[in-house]
Amino acid sequence: MVLLNSPHGPADTWARLPERLRQTIRTQALRVFVIDATRVGREAGLGPHINTVMQACFFAVSGVLPRDEASQRCRAAIHNTYARKGEAVVARNLAAFDAGFAQVQLLDWGALAREPAAPAQPTALAPLAGDAPPFVRAVIAPMLERRGDALPVSALPCDGTWPLGTARYDKRNIAGEVPLWQSDLCVQCGKCVLVCPHAVIRAKVAAPEAFAAAPPGFATAAARDHAFAGQTFTLQVAAEDCTGCGLCVAVCPVSDPADARRRAINMVPQRPLRTMARRDWSFSLSLPEVPRTPLNLHRIGQQQLQQPLFEFPGACAGCGETPYLKLASQLFGDRLLIANATGCSSIYGGNLPTTPWCTNAQGRGPAWSNSLFEDNAEFGFGMRVALDQRRQTALALLADLPLPAALIAGLVSADQSDEAGIVAQRQRVAALKTLVQQNQTPQAQRLLHHADALVRTSVWLVGGDGWAYDIGFGGLDHVLASGRDLNALVLDTEVYSNTGGQASKATPMGAVARFAAAGKATAKKDLGLMAMSYGDVYVASVALGARDEHTIRVFLEAESYPGPALILAYAHCIAHGIAMGEGMTQQQLAVQSGRWLLYRFDPRRRARGLNPLQLDSPAPRLPLAEAMASEHRFRQLQQSQPTRAAALAAAAQRAVDRRWALYRALAALPANALER
Amino acid sequence: MVLLNSPHGPADTWARLPERLRQTIRTQALRVFVIDATRVGREAGLGPHINTVMQACFFAVSGVLPRDEASQRCRAAIHNTYARKGEAVVARNLAAFDAGFAQVQLLDWGALAREPAAPAQPTALAPLAGDAPPFVRAVIAPMLERRGDALPVSALPCDGTWPLGTARYDKRNIAGEVPLWQSDLCVQCGKCVLVCPHAVIRAKVAAPEAFAAAPPGFATAAARDHAFAGQTFTLQVAAEDCTGCGLCVAVCPVSDPADARRRAINMVPQRPLRTMARRDWSFSLSLPEVPRTPLNLHRIGQQQLQQPLFEFPGACAGCGETPYLKLASQLFGDRLLIANATGCSSIYGGNLPTTPWCTNAQGRGPAWSNSLFEDNAEFGFGMRVALDQRRQTALALLADLPLPAALIAGLVSADQSDEAGIVAQRQRVAALKTLVQQNQTPQAQRLLHHADALVRTSVWLVGGDGWAYDIGFGGLDHVLASGRDLNALVLDTEVYSNTGGQASKATPMGAVARFAAAGKATAKKDLGLMAMSYGDVYVASVALGARDEHTIRVFLEAESYPGPALILAYAHCIAHGIAMGEGMTQQQLAVQSGRWLLYRFDPRRRARGLNPLQLDSPAPRLPLAEAMASEHRFRQLQQSQPTRAAALAAAAQRAVDRRWALYRALAALPANALER
Repeated sequence: MVLLNSPHGPADTWARLPERLRQTIRTQALRVFVIDATRVGREAGLGPHINTVMQACFFAVSGVLPRDEASQRCRAAIHNTYARKGEAVVARNLAAFDAGFAQVQLLDWGALAREPAAPAQPTALAPLAGDAPPFVRAVIAPMLERRGDALPVSALPCDGTWPLGTARYDKRNIAGEVPLWQSDLCVQCGKCVLVCPHAVIRAKVAAPEAFAAAPPGFATAAARDHAFAGQTFTLQVAAEDCTGCGLCVAVCPVSDPADARRRAINMVPQRPLRTMARRDWSFSLSLPEVPRTPLNLHRIGQQQLQQPLFEFPGACAGCGETPYLKLASQLFGDRLLIANATGCSSIYGGNLPTTPWCTNAQGRGPAWSNSLFEDNAEFGFGMRVALDQRRQTALALLADLPLPAALIAGLVSADQSDEAGIVAQRQRVAALKTLVQQNQTPQAQRLLHHADALVRTSVWLVGGDGWAYDIGFGGLDHVLASGRDLNALVLDTEVYSNTGGQASKATPMGAVARFAAAGKATAKKDLGLMAMSYGDVYVASVALGARDEHTIRVFLEAESYPGPALILAYAHCIAHGIAMGEGMTQQQLAVQSGRWLLYRFDPRRRARGLNPLQLDSPAPRLPLAEAMASEHRFRQLQQSQPTRAAALAAAAQRAVDRRWALYRALAALPANALER
Repeated sequence: MVLLNSPHGPADTWARLPERLRQTIRTQALRVFVIDATRVGREAGLGPHINTVMQACFFAVSGVLPRDEASQRCRAAIHNTYARKGEAVVARNLAAFDAGFAQVQLLDWGALAREPAAPAQPTALAPLAGDAPPFVRAVIAPMLERRGDALPVSALPCDGTWPLGTARYDKRNIAGEVPLWQSDLCVQCGKCVLVCPHAVIRAKVAAPEAFAAAPPGFATAAARDHAFAGQTFTLQVAAEDCTGCGLCVAVCPVSDPADARRRAINMVPQRPLRTMARRDWSFSLSLPEVPRTPLNLHRIGQQQLQQPLFEFPGACAGCGETPYLKLASQLFGDRLLIANATGCSSIYGGNLPTTPWCTNAQGRGPAWSNSLFEDNAEFGFGMRVALDQRRQTALALLADLPLPAALIAGLVSADQSDEAGIVAQRQRVAALKTLVQQNQTPQAQRLLHHADALVRTSVWLVGGDGWAYDIGFGGLDHVLASGRDLNALVLDTEVYSNTGGQASKATPMGAVARFAAAGKATAKKDLGLMAMSYGDVYVASVALGARDEHTIRVFLEAESYPGPALILAYAHCIAHGIAMGEGMTQQQLAVQSGRWLLYRFDPRRRARGLNPLQLDSPAPRLPLAEAMASEHRFRQLQQSQPTRAAALAAAAQRAVDRRWALYRALAALPANALER
C-alpha cells in the first residue's frame, strides 16, 4: 500500500509520478491512496503540521483496525496528547483527523493506466538551463539529477575549485506557502530581508525608469527612505527557492489596521503564483544594485540593499545560522576569505554539486573552503599569514619600482577600516596595475601578481559550537592569542546540530541532548569570557532575533578591529524543539531571561579611557523557567524527570544570575580602576 | 689536545680514566692537561662558575696566541664583559683567570704509563648492587652502563610496566658541593626539605632508642615541635644524589649569630664526606617513617616528615618543577594516579632505565604513565572514568553479598576528604577483604578484585605550560568542564623548557624565547581565569618560593575538592636565565611585582555565602621592570633592542596592573551580588 500527500488529486498525481515508480506500482499491484494533507491541516487550523491528518488516513485505509474502532481510539489518543495544550488545540486536531479520515481517496491507477501520460515535468534545472553556464549544464545538472556516477573524472576540476553561485540552478520548489509582499503596507524596514535564512527576499531601489520594462503587475512602491527620495522600491521573493519558514512574516513590524493578523508580508500558497513570481524575480535580478557607498549600514533598510553573496543554501527551513552568514556576505562578501569548520555550515555551504556562496557583477565574492573540526582556526590562520606575506611582498616591490610618490603613499597608508576606504584602495590598486602593466621587468610582473593583496582582505573562521567550544577550541584559542587580524564567527546552536544533536560544552544546563539524556548537568561554557581574558581580542555576543541592529554593529566593529575578533551568534535550531518560524522570538526569550547576554568587548575603547566591555543586554526580566518551557529540549525533561528538571532549572537560574552579576560588575568597573 | 677539569691531579686523574680512553690518548699521542677548575673558581669567589678558569687554561696551553698576548686580551675581555656587574665581579674573574692560567698542569702520561693501573673505580651501581632487586641488577644496571643493546628482548617487561623506585640505584655523584646540616642552629622548619628538587634532604623524627645503632657522629637534635616532645630529630642528605643547587641554603631562615653568612644548612665539598654521608643516609632510611596521621599538614615541619614517593629525578640542578611533584607524592602518593604530558616532567619522571617515582614500605606508590602533549588530559580522564566504574561495580557487589550492614554503610558513605578518612577506609577495605576471601562465589571474587577501588584514588594530570596552555589545552578545558574529580597540575615555566625554550602562550610579555626572538608581544594567557569561568572548577595559583604554606594549603584543598581542580604552579627554570640556586627568590620577585598572582577559587565557599575567589597576593609593590631585570630572558631584549624592550615593559606593566585590578574587583564582589 502507498499513501501519498499530494495537492493534485488522484489522476493528476498519477500523471506526475516518474514512470519507473508507476512501473513498480503496476508490477507489485500496489494499492495507492492520495490525500492533500497540507490543505486539510491548514484548513483545520494546524498550520503546516500534517501528522494528525496522515495518521487519520493511515487508519482509514490500512485496515489495521476496524474503521469505527480506529476512529474512536485515535480521537481518545488526540485528547490525551493535546489536552495540556488546551481545548482549542484538541478541537483542531479532531477536526483535522475527521477531515483526513473522510477525504483520503483511492488512486485507481488501473482505470487511469491507459490514459496518455501527462507531459514530462520539467526537471529542477529546466527553467534556467538555457542561461546556465556550460559547467552547470555539463557537470552540475547531471549530479543534481543523481546521474553523477555517469560523469567522467575528466569533467571535474582538477584543482578542487568549484564555481560559485551554483545553488541558484537547483530550483527545489519545496515550500507550500511563500511570502507575498504588500507594497501598500510596507515601511521598507528591511527586517524580512535580514532574517530570511535563504536570501529569497530581496529589496531593490532604483530610478523609476529602471522599471519601464517590468512585467505587468510587478509590485513597487515609492522609496520611503529620504536617502532615496524620488526613487522606486521593490521587494521580491524567489518563490522557487523559498522554504516557507515564515520568519519574514514573524518579524514584520507592520500590521494591517483592517486585520491585525495581516502584515506587510504574508504567507500564501506557492503553486498559484509560481510562474508570476519566477518572472518577477528574474526581472528584479536585472535591476541595478545600489552602490555600496554611501549606504548607512546601521540602518537596516539601507544595509539590506547590499547584495547577498550567499543565497539558497540547503539549510533547514527557518535556519538560525544562515542569516548571520548572509549578513557577512553583504557587508564584506567581495573581499571575504572563509575557513569553514565541519558542521551544518560546511554542509549547506558546500553541498556538492552546488554552493550558496556567489559573486557580484564584478566577479568578486567570498573564497570559501572547509576544513576539519579540529583545525579550522589554524586553517584560516594560514590564510591570514599568506595574505600578510603577499602584502609585505607587494609593499617591498612598490618601493623598488619607479612609481608616483603620491600613489605609493596612498597605497601604503590607506585607511581601509570601512567600505569607503576599501573602495578608494581598490581604485589605487587599479591605477597601480595600469601603470605597472607597461613595465616588463620581473619585479613589475611580480607586483602585478601581488597587487590585489594591498586591498584589505577579511579572513573569517566560521563554525558551530561543536567546533568553537569543543573540538576546535584549542586551535581557536591559539589563533585568538596570536594578535592577527582575523574574525571568528561562532554559529552557536548550543548542540552538535548536523550530527544529530549531541551535547557540546555550549549546551545549556538542563537541556536534553544526546550524551545528556538526563539533561545537561553543567552550565554552558563561557567562551566569550575566556576570549576577553586576553584583553586584546574583540569579543561580542549577538542574537539577531533579539536586537538586529546590534548584530550589524558588532559585525562592522569586529571586522574593522585590526586584531582577532570573536562573535558568538545565537542560532535557534530544529534541535531545540521549537517552531522554526518562531525562531527569532525564541532568541528574544533567550535574551530576556538572561540565558544569552548581548555585549561587546572592544579593546580600542581603552585608548579613549573607557572600559572595553559594554553590556548591551537589559537586566533579565523573564524567569529562566518560562524561557526554558518554550523549548522542547528543556520541556521534555520536565515530563520525563520532573524532580531533576526542577533542580537543574533552579541551578541554571542561579548560574544565569551569577553570570549577569559578574558581567554587570565587569562592565561597571571604572576604566581608571584598570590602570595604576 | 685534551683539557680536563679534575680535582685529582695528573697522576690520579690518569689512573681514573677508563682504559679505552687511555688507549685512545696513547694511540693518538694526545697532549693532556689537567686543572681543578671548580676549586679555582670557588677560591676566586665565582661560586660554581668555571668558564673564566677554563678559558684561561685554554689560552695557556693551546698556543693559539702567544701567552702574553692571550693573557692581555682575555683580561681586557673580562673588563668588557663584567664591567656592568661592578668592580668586584671583574676582580674575581681576573683572579680566577690568573689562577687558571698559572695552575693548569701537563698530564705526562708517558711517564705514568708503566706504573700499575689504579684499582678500577666502582660503577655507579656498585655501592648498592648487593641490595638491589634482581631486575635492577639484570636489566637496569646494564642499561645504566650503556650496555642496554646487549640485553635480550625477553629481559624487558612484556606489558610495558617498569619497577618504581629505581632512580635510587643510579648514584651520580655530580655535585661538587652538597649541603651539610648544622643541628645546633636548625629550627627544624622543614623548608630545606620542601624545596629540594631531588628529595635528597630528609627529616625524620623517632624515639631516642631508634638511634641506638646509629653510626658514630650521626647528627641529631632534640625534636623542637611539641607534637614530638621527647623524640629525636635528624636531617640527612643523600650526598651521592644531590645536584648541589643550593636552594636549601637559600631558603634557610636561620643565620648563625656569629657569622651571618652561615645558615643552619651550608654547602660543603662533597668528596671528603661522601663515605660518611653514604653511611648516614643509609642508616636514616632504616629509621621508621612517622605515622601519616595525625600530622598537621599545614605546618611544614610536620608535613615534610611525610615520605616523598618521588626521589632523585634527572631534572636540572635547582629545578622549579620537581618540588611540586615531590609535595604531591608526600601528601597523596600512596593513592596517586598520574597522567603525565610530554615535557620535562615526562623525561625526568620516566627517564629509562630508572624512574624517580617510588613506593612506601607498604608497597604503595604513584602509578604513573606518560601520554602525548595533545591528549594527556583525556588520558587521565580515562583513568578517572575507569576508577569510578570499578567503584560502582564494587558498590553494586557489596549490596549483593551477605555482609555486616555497618561495614557496608561505612564503606559506602565514608568521608575520605582527608588523610584520616582515607586511613579509616583502608581499614574497612581490609576488613571487607578478610570477610570476602572465605566466599568462593564469583561475586565475592569479583568484589575482591575491585575492593581497592572503594578507597578514593587521586587522579592527577601533570604537565607544563606547553601542554596546558597550548597543545593540550583543548583537552584540558574539556576535562575541566566534565565535573569529574580530577586534579590538573600545571608546572608553569612559561616556556617549552624541554625542547629548548620555545615561547608558549604562558610566556610573559617582553620575554625572549625561541619564536619570540624580539620579545613576546602579547600578554601571558590567563588560564586560571578561563578555568574559573566554569564556576565549578577549583582553581588556584601558587608559587612555592613566594608562599610555601599557601602551596601546601592549595594542594590539600584541590585534592579534597570533589570535582575538577586546576593548580597553576610557578616554576623557575634554566630557560629564564637565572642563577638556579636563587630560583625561590625569583619566585618571590614574580609575586611581589604582581606578574604572578597567588589566589584560590573554591566553589565550595558559595555554600557558605562567600565569594569563591580569595586573592592571596598582596598588592604589587615592586615595579615590574625591576623584577624583569633580574632575569636574562627579559634583560637580553633591553640589550639588543632597548626601545622595543622599554615599550614592551611598559605594556607589560599596564597588563599586570589591569589584571591586578580585575582580580581585586572579582574577589571583592559581595557574595550576595552573585545571587538574585
